[in-house]
Amino acid sequence: METLLMRELTGQTRVLGILADPIAQVKAPQLINRIAAERGVDAVMVPFHVSAEDLPKLVAGLHVLQSFDGAIVTVPHKTSMIAHCDHLSDRAAAVGAVNVIRREADGRLFGDALDGIGFLAGLRASGIEVAGREIYLAGAGGAANAIAFALAESGARGLTIANRTRSKANDLVSRLMAHFPLLPVRIGTRDPSGHDIIVNGTSLGMKPDDSLPLDVEKLASSMVVCEVVMEPEETALLAAARRQGCRIHLGTPMLMNQVELMADFFRVR
Amino acid sequence: METLLMRELTGQTRVLGILADPIAQVKAPQLINRIAAERGVDAVMVPFHVSAEDLPKLVAGLHVLQSFDGAIVTVPHKTSMIAHCDHLSDRAAAVGAVNVIRREADGRLFGDALDGIGFLAGLRASGIEVAGREIYLAGAGGAANAIAFALAESGARGLTIANRTRSKANDLVSRLMAHFPLLPVRIGTRDPSGHDIIVNGTSLGMKPDDSLPLDVEKLASSMVVCEVVMEPEETALLAAARRQGCRIHLGTPMLMNQVELMADFFRVR
Repeated sequence: METLLMRELTGQTRVLGILADPIAQVKAPQLINRIAAERGVDAVMVPFHVSAEDLPKLVAGLHVLQSFDGAIVTVPHKTSMIAHCDHLSDRAAAVGAVNVIRREADGRLFGDALDGIGFLAGLRASGIEVAGREIYLAGAGGAANAIAFALAESGARGLTIANRTRSKANDLVSRLMAHFPLLPVRIGTRDPSGHDIIVNGTSLGMKPDDSLPLDVEKLASSMVVCEVVMEPEETALLAAARRQGCRIHLGTPMLMNQVELMADFFRVR
Repeated sequence: METLLMRELTGQTRVLGILADPIAQVKAPQLINRIAAERGVDAVMVPFHVSAEDLPKLVAGLHVLQSFDGAIVTVPHKTSMIAHCDHLSDRAAAVGAVNVIRREADGRLFGDALDGIGFLAGLRASGIEVAGREIYLAGAGGAANAIAFALAESGARGLTIANRTRSKANDLVSRLMAHFPLLPVRIGTRDPSGHDIIVNGTSLGMKPDDSLPLDVEKLASSMVVCEVVMEPEETALLAAARRQGCRIHLGTPMLMNQVELMADFFRVR
């Protein structure tokens, strides 16, 4: 158990949440609450555990919760939350997913997507260059959408999207092509061969019995293999990549590089 | 600003709330969070500021919030919350108001009323005896209902209920007479003459421009004058009572004597 010298919560404390299912593994409350303490802001983030089915009811409640300032939105709510936002950033609208919402004083919810920027900042901080590289991305959900758009903006040479549900991959590829007509974008299989950077943008790897997001036998030692899953830190994919001699990039830097942006977004400043 | 060495909040922290409007003045988060820290329980209470009009939407959201364990319910929600509870304690059903709700694992909300017990425990701790005394109670809302039933159970000789809205006073008196057929219960005016213990059970006194809950010129020095309002600590009523030479009893003991009961109710143990 970690303890922390916190500002005592009062009736004036602003409330932040993280919407997730499952939720026990999330790390954002610790990070955001440390930033609030460092910045001397009277705000606290608590877990809001809600199922996909029940999300609309909870969000209707958050609209009228006057002490609520915003929430991180994560698996499985990133895409479905779009429908509950009253307005969106251009980025979130293009991506078709949000990972943060903010409650305005009049109760309206504004959604943005900071995960793509956060993922790229994490790569850059580790010295992994995207420009000119062929990139393979597993997934077409909320996180994968945000990462795909951020990668496309950052000068990747080409981008392959592989997803179990083919229609979601087609949809993501169409939207990428509409926004980035000069970028080669294709639908991929489970085989990552021929790419420089491999990214798992699915939630596969969170649970011990999850299947692998791609065919790990086809990984080559020249590849950099990146995760969005944060818990466990070394997923089965990363363990396999390490065995194949690949450089690996953990899921945590994406969050660590985002939390300051998120705190600013929530007006924790 | 008070600081506190708190357990760091995580995705596994259980969330408690306090439902109120206004909310800035509430003191329960500080008290409950200290108890959670002392007991080593991973739970935190945060302010849930919601208007009377918006309460149904927020409660529908709390029904599906799996990390939520319960809330304190205070002004102006104590009576209206009854309709949103799936089951009630006998005490809360008799009183017609709740001041705590607990979320069961299946999402059902259970309501109880601990304020009457808390008020009496506060009187007892100050050595103020209720048995055999004539009592004047201003108010017929949630807190006043809870206090009236607790006073009736504690051997008061007689009980006078005075409320601006006469129909609410009539309703409370009828319910008291049904539960305590041998106790003299009457409707009163703004004049507290002829009573031993005077209780303000309304929220009048919270705001600087509130009118007084009763006619303070009729207070006599033999009377004990008690508040439920906690902020300001000395309300205009108590100041007037002090000037008349009365013994006064603050609003805070009612909460202080309740918080351990509330923590138990929320399973902070």
